[in-house]
Amino acid sequence: MMKLYEYNWQVRKEWFDWCDAVTEKELLKKRTGGKGGILYTLFHIVDVEYSWISGLQGKPEPQEPSFEDYANVQKLRDYSARCHEEIASFIYTWNSSMETLILADENATDESESFKYGEIMRHVLAHEIHHIGQLSVWSREVGKQPITANFIRRGLFDS
Amino acid sequence: MMKLYEYNWQVRKEWFDWCDAVTEKELLKKRTGGKGGILYTLFHIVDVEYSWISGLQGKPEPQEPSFEDYANVQKLRDYSARCHEEIASFIYTWNSSMETLILADENATDESESFKYGEIMRHVLAHEIHHIGQLSVWSREVGKQPITANFIRRGLFDS
Repeated sequence: MMKLYEYNWQVRKEWFDWCDAVTEKELLKKRTGGKGGILYTLFHIVDVEYSWISGLQGKPEPQEPSFEDYANVQKLRDYSARCHEEIASFIYTWNSSMETLILADENATDESESFKYGEIMRHVLAHEIHHIGQLSVWSREVGKQPITANFIRRGLFDS
Repeated sequence: MMKLYEYNWQVRKEWFDWCDAVTEKELLKKRTGGKGGILYTLFHIVDVEYSWISGLQGKPEPQEPSFEDYANVQKLRDYSARCHEEIASFIYTWNSSMETLILADENATDESESFKYGEIMRHVLAHEIHHIGQLSVWSREVGKQPITANFIRRGLFDS
């Protein structure tokens, strides 16, 4: 589990660096599909990971962030780093005994809406990889090579 | 690990069904980014999973399939099912003792190119999710709603 989170964080960092070489106009441009734009997608990825993992940590639901406050690469990179600092320890202490713990969704209208911790952990993982796939299409629209999505050759299994 | 593979297989099946309602012209149309087309991407996903997992199973490298033989939804669905039958048992018997087994890439020009089994297993997982993200953008170009990428609410953690 941890290795896939590390993969996501590494890939996300590389996308932030990729953004440094792209105009703000392109980063904010409305696009077809997904969350409709490059920078907004990265913001959404950070927000979703932070919200769900905060929930698993037993913290109250974080206040919903406003994209306007982070609609700039450096601001978003800093926001991502702050969120990361709060959640990373939880990811690193994850173990199989936590798989079946239950997170009840307090905002659900359906009382039966609750999730196993293992389900959320995988949901967050897949969520980021999926959205990064969308960025890779848009990067070609911008005329730039996307960040590689390869899990191999990233040193994630070097001992 | 197994749950994320099951997720991929479930999502892939839903995309095949999605394809049934889309014209062959749209499915084969050349698109920007990724592998350049909807049906070819699904073919590539099947091929990559099958090749890598065959390697982990100790089987010889499968003969490279030709997309022309599967450039139709039903043919591709059948091909995916045949590959799945060959590899599923390996995924279901996966356990942590296999993480650090070594797969040497016989085709690598660099002799040092070898991978841990755990690395390959995650590479294949992330590979499919990433490419499905690309399909989700293209589905909006076709004017259709994409298959949900949600891991939650799929019954994958129902006991």
